[in-house]
Amino acid sequence: MRDEIRESILDAVDRLLERSGYKKMKIDDIAEEVGIGKGTIYLHFRSKEDVALAHIDRIVQRLLVQLNEIAESNANPVTKLRAMLIARVMTRFDSVQHYPESINDLLADLRANLLARRESHFDDEATVFGRVLEEGKQQKAFDLKNPIATGHSLLLATNSLLPYSLSVQELGDRHEIEEKIERIADLLLEGLVRR
Amino acid sequence: MRDEIRESILDAVDRLLERSGYKKMKIDDIAEEVGIGKGTIYLHFRSKEDVALAHIDRIVQRLLVQLNEIAESNANPVTKLRAMLIARVMTRFDSVQHYPESINDLLADLRANLLARRESHFDDEATVFGRVLEEGKQQKAFDLKNPIATGHSLLLATNSLLPYSLSVQELGDRHEIEEKIERIADLLLEGLVRR
Repeated sequence: MRDEIRESILDAVDRLLERSGYKKMKIDDIAEEVGIGKGTIYLHFRSKEDVALAHIDRIVQRLLVQLNEIAESNANPVTKLRAMLIARVMTRFDSVQHYPESINDLLADLRANLLARRESHFDDEATVFGRVLEEGKQQKAFDLKNPIATGHSLLLATNSLLPYSLSVQELGDRHEIEEKIERIADLLLEGLVRR
Repeated sequence: MRDEIRESILDAVDRLLERSGYKKMKIDDIAEEVGIGKGTIYLHFRSKEDVALAHIDRIVQRLLVQLNEIAESNANPVTKLRAMLIARVMTRFDSVQHYPESINDLLADLRANLLARRESHFDDEATVFGRVLEEGKQQKAFDLKNPIATGHSLLLATNSLLPYSLSVQELGDRHEIEEKIERIADLLLEGLVRR
């Protein structure tokens, strides 16, 4: 029950961020949108800032569930890594495609906090990537030294396709983004230098 | 002479962007900083917006000179491409490292124009990268189909290290950035999959 209300609050935040943006959104608006009292929101979150950041966290937590599912599947490490690179871009794209602005602009007031969360999200992602990289290293499928460091490099090499500084509209249409991330994933896996 | 004044104006803009930022900067301030009359500035630029964008263009034009020099050197295509990837990140870093904000925030008022310029800068870079990729393809050093498309993928895979949405301070220290771009360049060239 407690978790259900928390989820309903975050769902309401998602709709309000789309409709009115972060600046105009008030705790009262969230309460009204969920159909609960303002006090109930404060049982779950300390502030409007806290709710907004929890909403961004939830997007990444859902992505992490998806990445873990791929990581634990029976596919070979090359196939898994490619799917994970595509998922980290496309899931974020789909999660925020209804927002008129980029995450940075939408949550500009939270910049310092947002940057810190982002770093911790990247660390979480790098851990899952690191597991698959380690597995591939053991199977002698990948040529690499440090799985976590390589995981971070893979994230960095695909971060420009995330809707942080560019809105989804500015990033381009979904199909184009998908082609771009596929080409980068192939480059990172196979490399340019002829074999 | 005409070109010298233009350069002096852009040098002054660089100092003013560092000291007071775009919003506070006035054409009068630029004139005073150069030690010329306001009218002389209007002989070279239509508006404050025009001067600021010309300043960003100049950073990329200087980078393009550097990329072309590498592209035309006698090194092998693999070495050239690696050096070009590192140069595109480090030259931008060094060019704007004295600004307290990211380029996006510094020039937030110019966003639409800035995004359009950026696209055209990437096209110019992709052309130089495409030449080296084509050369490597001819020499059977690289495995690729479309040099320009691959050039764009290489840019996208290194764009997250450019000081657009993150300030130089937020990106991290120079040495760390250099290590990050080197690791990504190696991945893009050699790939993860064991040979």
